[in-house]
Amino acid sequence: MSNDRTVETAGPDKIPRTARGRETLRKLLDAAAEEFGEKGFHDGSISGITRRAGTALGSFYTYFDSKDEIFRALVKDMSERVKTSAGKAQVDGLTSLERERAALAGFMEFARAHKEIYRIIDEAEFVDPESYRKHYETTARRIRERLEYGAAKGDLKPGLGEAHAWAIMGMNVFLGLRYAVWASDEDTDRVADIAAAILAEGIGPKG
Amino acid sequence: MSNDRTVETAGPDKIPRTARGRETLRKLLDAAAEEFGEKGFHDGSISGITRRAGTALGSFYTYFDSKDEIFRALVKDMSERVKTSAGKAQVDGLTSLERERAALAGFMEFARAHKEIYRIIDEAEFVDPESYRKHYETTARRIRERLEYGAAKGDLKPGLGEAHAWAIMGMNVFLGLRYAVWASDEDTDRVADIAAAILAEGIGPKG
Repeated sequence: MSNDRTVETAGPDKIPRTARGRETLRKLLDAAAEEFGEKGFHDGSISGITRRAGTALGSFYTYFDSKDEIFRALVKDMSERVKTSAGKAQVDGLTSLERERAALAGFMEFARAHKEIYRIIDEAEFVDPESYRKHYETTARRIRERLEYGAAKGDLKPGLGEAHAWAIMGMNVFLGLRYAVWASDEDTDRVADIAAAILAEGIGPKG
Repeated sequence: MSNDRTVETAGPDKIPRTARGRETLRKLLDAAAEEFGEKGFHDGSISGITRRAGTALGSFYTYFDSKDEIFRALVKDMSERVKTSAGKAQVDGLTSLERERAALAGFMEFARAHKEIYRIIDEAEFVDPESYRKHYETTARRIRERLEYGAAKGDLKPGLGEAHAWAIMGMNVFLGLRYAVWASDEDTDRVADIAAAILAEGIGPKG
């Protein structure tokens, strides 16, 4: 993860100035992911987070005012990591359809390694609805931009827009839930191939 | 709603024997949907439910032992209603692709009229994980059966299976979230057309 991203996560008054500060902030966010992922928001605690992070309680308050605040920062951090995981799988020279396939494969790999992400994002619906909504709106906007780019360069159908992006996001989220978080009984590549085939030609008898 | 469905919702020892009993049970479930939909599980209360239902507290305990128990019954009831809403839109003589389109359109209409469904099902992930999982597994199984039937009669591609069903379910859930629950800025028919076009021919340049 880039330091830029980590820095962006904290509030504007609390940007770590040193490499060590950035490292502490990263440790706190990773510990919060474990703590909330295991215990949920209500049973998770600041002392649980600092214990997992191996930091003093004072370090926590250097960056966050409350449990709510680190939870919000964590959802934003997770959202960024979803973006990075989908983006990392992208290489130059892919067609738009290959790019969508790579985004799903990258996301599924990430979700298998960080199964707590579903619980944290899903709990945000109740703990911090604004972050929840923003996560999906941002993710959908990113997919929509890829689709519009593909439509413009002619390797996707013209007229793709917001609803197409939400449809694809939904596909990816539920395939991730089933095949990355609940069980790993299918190869992620095979699942990504299935989703890619739906996007390439649908499920109708033709094609 | 059929009485059969209502009856099925309560535990085996608590099936209402009279029409009046079935009506009371239905009122309690509808009141629970309002109560938990507005306040969430933790802040919702049995007295809030009976007040909304206009029934005595004793009637509640005739059918349910606890807040947990009516919540579990409610998730099952909602799950059945999703099934019914998707099924009601089906008419004889549809192709498999038309059938999937009708299922989504029916579901979106239902979700617009019962926006609380998302909050209730989503909260089940935390309050009653088994019900949450069962809701999605059952819904996916139903879609899968339609796909396999379509593949067998030749109006869908051969080889469709579980992952296709999960992909379609995810599409539907997220289109419902965006266009039925968060905002009604798009006609549900137009959204259903977009999803149907993806299933008919994908988003690639061909087709």
